[in-house]
Amino acid sequence: MNILFRNANLKDLPEIVRMLADDFLGGQRERYEDPLPESYVRAFREIDADPNNELIVAVRQAASTVGDASGAQLKGTDRDEAHAGETPAVQSEMVGMMQLTFTPSISFQGGKRATVESVRVDSKNRGQGIGERMMRWAIERAKEKGCVSMQLTTNLERTDAHRFYERLGFSRSHLGMKLKLQ
Amino acid sequence: MNILFRNANLKDLPEIVRMLADDFLGGQRERYEDPLPESYVRAFREIDADPNNELIVAVRQAASTVGDASGAQLKGTDRDEAHAGETPAVQSEMVGMMQLTFTPSISFQGGKRATVESVRVDSKNRGQGIGERMMRWAIERAKEKGCVSMQLTTNLERTDAHRFYERLGFSRSHLGMKLKLQ
Repeated sequence: MNILFRNANLKDLPEIVRMLADDFLGGQRERYEDPLPESYVRAFREIDADPNNELIVAVRQAASTVGDASGAQLKGTDRDEAHAGETPAVQSEMVGMMQLTFTPSISFQGGKRATVESVRVDSKNRGQGIGERMMRWAIERAKEKGCVSMQLTTNLERTDAHRFYERLGFSRSHLGMKLKLQ
Repeated sequence: MNILFRNANLKDLPEIVRMLADDFLGGQRERYEDPLPESYVRAFREIDADPNNELIVAVRQAASTVGDASGAQLKGTDRDEAHAGETPAVQSEMVGMMQLTFTPSISFQGGKRATVESVRVDSKNRGQGIGERMMRWAIERAKEKGCVSMQLTTNLERTDAHRFYERLGFSRSHLGMKLKLQ
């Protein structure tokens, strides 16, 4: 499976909100409507403008549409030749999303941290290892940014997620606490 | 007790690192040395330059040194008169620190979150309600920045801290997981 990871753009936003809403917790707190509530667009623009925040989408692509950006090689084919005179069939589909935040910090001898939030794999695309590939990509991205650690919080009710992250090497070291302000 | 909350400056950094190191977990991971390792200074400058990160120090001030910046009133005295011809005794002392991070986010209908990390009250100044005043200040600051929620993670071993945050209204809703990258 060819998966391209890239920064989300504004056109991805409805699909992102759909994915957030398609969840037993998210369903209660998101508004997946057409047009989207303006607050989503505002938040998107803030993330987009902040070098310490990256909203990442995972896009599955048919082999014929994979370009250099995915890092994948098209072995044994000459793409230009194969598609000479054709309009390539675009079969890309967003299959996952996540937000990465890079936080400079004094503790740990001034070690920068990466936080991953809003990790979602599209419900009809689960069980194919997409979540694992997303997290491995996120870990490499955090290393690239010089982070000494990656952290996340996951709702106590998401017990499958706890096991998933543990398999990736995360340790259950902290209690995550939240306070609503509004 | 008059406490002034302000953004840390570079001169506060040794005291900040001392406070982080004076801790059963921090003692194993910080280097409180003279001169400070350069990595601390680098991290300080990154935080200082980032509008979404605030390194806050709590400074206790003797009444005679409290100015307008603290928001406190010197009731019933005329400060200029009382100190005419004197150099006021400067008795300010850093008693606490914390880092606030404001994260734009798509989830919760584009609701911005505040995260508080590295919350420390100086060991010889505990039991006086300073931590609570710091957190109440942080909550107001997060509201000012338009955040819909405040979140934190606290090591599973810090059971006193869990009760402390619960008293302030935080709920134990999440598991906090960490992965070392270096």
